[in-house]
Amino acid sequence: MTAIDSFWAVVPAGGAGTRLWPLSRSSAPKFLRDLTGTGRSLLQGTYDRLEPLVLDRFLVVTGAAHWDAVSMQLPGVAAEAIVVEPSARDSMAAIGLAAAMLEARDPDAVMGSFPADHVIADPDAFRAAVRTAIEVAHEGWLVTVGIDPTFASTAFGYVHLGEQLEGHPGVRAVREFVEKPSVEVAERYLATGSYRWNAGMFVVRPAVLLDLLAQGDAAFAASLRAIAADPSSLEAVWPTLPKIALDHAVAEPAAAAGRVVVVPASFGWDDIGDFDSLATLLVDTTSGGADATVTVLGDPALVEATSATGLVVPAAGKLVAVVGLDDVIIIDTPDALLVTTRAHAQDVKQIVAALKERGRADLT
Amino acid sequence: MTAIDSFWAVVPAGGAGTRLWPLSRSSAPKFLRDLTGTGRSLLQGTYDRLEPLVLDRFLVVTGAAHWDAVSMQLPGVAAEAIVVEPSARDSMAAIGLAAAMLEARDPDAVMGSFPADHVIADPDAFRAAVRTAIEVAHEGWLVTVGIDPTFASTAFGYVHLGEQLEGHPGVRAVREFVEKPSVEVAERYLATGSYRWNAGMFVVRPAVLLDLLAQGDAAFAASLRAIAADPSSLEAVWPTLPKIALDHAVAEPAAAAGRVVVVPASFGWDDIGDFDSLATLLVDTTSGGADATVTVLGDPALVEATSATGLVVPAAGKLVAVVGLDDVIIIDTPDALLVTTRAHAQDVKQIVAALKERGRADLT
Repeated sequence: MTAIDSFWAVVPAGGAGTRLWPLSRSSAPKFLRDLTGTGRSLLQGTYDRLEPLVLDRFLVVTGAAHWDAVSMQLPGVAAEAIVVEPSARDSMAAIGLAAAMLEARDPDAVMGSFPADHVIADPDAFRAAVRTAIEVAHEGWLVTVGIDPTFASTAFGYVHLGEQLEGHPGVRAVREFVEKPSVEVAERYLATGSYRWNAGMFVVRPAVLLDLLAQGDAAFAASLRAIAADPSSLEAVWPTLPKIALDHAVAEPAAAAGRVVVVPASFGWDDIGDFDSLATLLVDTTSGGADATVTVLGDPALVEATSATGLVVPAAGKLVAVVGLDDVIIIDTPDALLVTTRAHAQDVKQIVAALKERGRADLT
Repeated sequence: MTAIDSFWAVVPAGGAGTRLWPLSRSSAPKFLRDLTGTGRSLLQGTYDRLEPLVLDRFLVVTGAAHWDAVSMQLPGVAAEAIVVEPSARDSMAAIGLAAAMLEARDPDAVMGSFPADHVIADPDAFRAAVRTAIEVAHEGWLVTVGIDPTFASTAFGYVHLGEQLEGHPGVRAVREFVEKPSVEVAERYLATGSYRWNAGMFVVRPAVLLDLLAQGDAAFAASLRAIAADPSSLEAVWPTLPKIALDHAVAEPAAAAGRVVVVPASFGWDDIGDFDSLATLLVDTTSGGADATVTVLGDPALVEATSATGLVVPAAGKLVAVVGLDDVIIIDTPDALLVTTRAHAQDVKQIVAALKERGRADLT
């Protein structure tokens, strides 16, 4: 496995992960946490699987509040490669800024943008898919990676596959990106075999990305390029940028214009959107799929369970005893305890909202 | 309400209360804890409701490990009135020792033995029942108090009512004491109207109690009287005493012999045997019976609940969030967290047993 010249990894590291509260906090969000018990945070895991492809061509875009933590977690990444966004302005601004910087720095560059808080079980298969994506991106396409769906998820968006791309076996045109579907629609998608999960990964030449953006919002692309040309303008220009996701600003219109292709792939991907998703992931990886007892993220000696299934995180360092509950989620941290069920995992964000309303933002 | 001459309250303060773990510990058992949010422990509550009847004629029998705590909690009780049992030898030895001491001290005494860890909603009604019991006990009966059952409990023993006692309206002979029944049997008991809950309260002249004991085990009664005559023999004699409950040693055979009567009464009694019982009690007292949200024992500001019912005790002082669980029990203490349901409240003792087996007796 050798690195690929002029390929840059861009990792937007943002997002509060409120559905993973109290493990994920605004001060220490999901991407900074070790949610898989590997001893590495999700951000570090993202770095680890990209490093063989990029060596030191790694850019992180993150908030000022997280610069120190990101820098500590990634000693292999130079200080100037950790780009600070003055405020959170969604993914188009963050990834677009990185694109403009790379366009100015390396005219031959291909960039791949990968979220900082996803989990991938098979990094070799992931890198093989990215290699294919890079080859195609060199030819001017916006390339996404489409994950083979393993169940009818309603938590992910989907990519609708189109024609085969000539000269690149397996690579397909993207007919369209579709939002999170209902269960019925998701089941229909799976039955056709023509849909893949949208994992939010994009591989593209920076100039292509910015030109596609310019077709919809010329001022936005010009502003990003202006910042790259004169970094001292960042503070002044940044607040004027639209708050929009890259999917809406570029990927969807570009797909409609026939400019997007997808590398279908299968490498055990999960975005760990909530504790139900985390429990599934940990049950699979820690107990070979058996689910007859609670899964522990942390020290198993701290958990005493009887007639219980679910996920226990004894992160306060004290004993957690659970009796007679199925699919329970217990997250014990030093200053906050959450008790819920896998079925209510999505509702955890309501707790975070309620705490903010009560003036307890210190706990969120 | 005036005190009653020569009436002594005897309070055996023992029992681990393992089904209330982690609130109740061997080092700080149930009777020392404020389980009702009144600011008074169950032992203090017991003292408070008896004090108007006995003034300073109050004897506590407890283990050496709890002497300091009992003494601190009951500043109105003299040091010599807190009797230390050298080891736990069940209720007959504990209450019998108090009886022998009182027999030697006050030939006219009537004693009432009341558990240290029960809750009574209406202390006036309780004292009225005890006054009646004292009158009857003067005549030489062993008198118990029988609680009007409010549901078909399988957690309590029952008293089967017999004939009216002449000269004492309402007082009935005890036909027999019966052990905890099945649901079906308990329902049958309630339907007859002739059964009362056995609350473990006995009012009797000390000499009568010891003479009844002597009929079944003369040596036991003699040993207790020997200790009272020469307190320095306590350490030597105590380990030779049988480990047996007063119910088995005296109450059941005496009932069979027609020597026991019962004062039926109704004063909102509960023995708080487990968290289900505690939840019922607190729902009734704190929210007027409504059960549409969680009940909090402690600071309500520490609990954030959504679509949940049950009992939360935020005793670790940190926030507890609960989402989407019915009849949940969450007991958060500084060194141990319990999560279970009301239906599994009885199984909590299994956790305590498992912890002991794992060498974590420090947590029990």
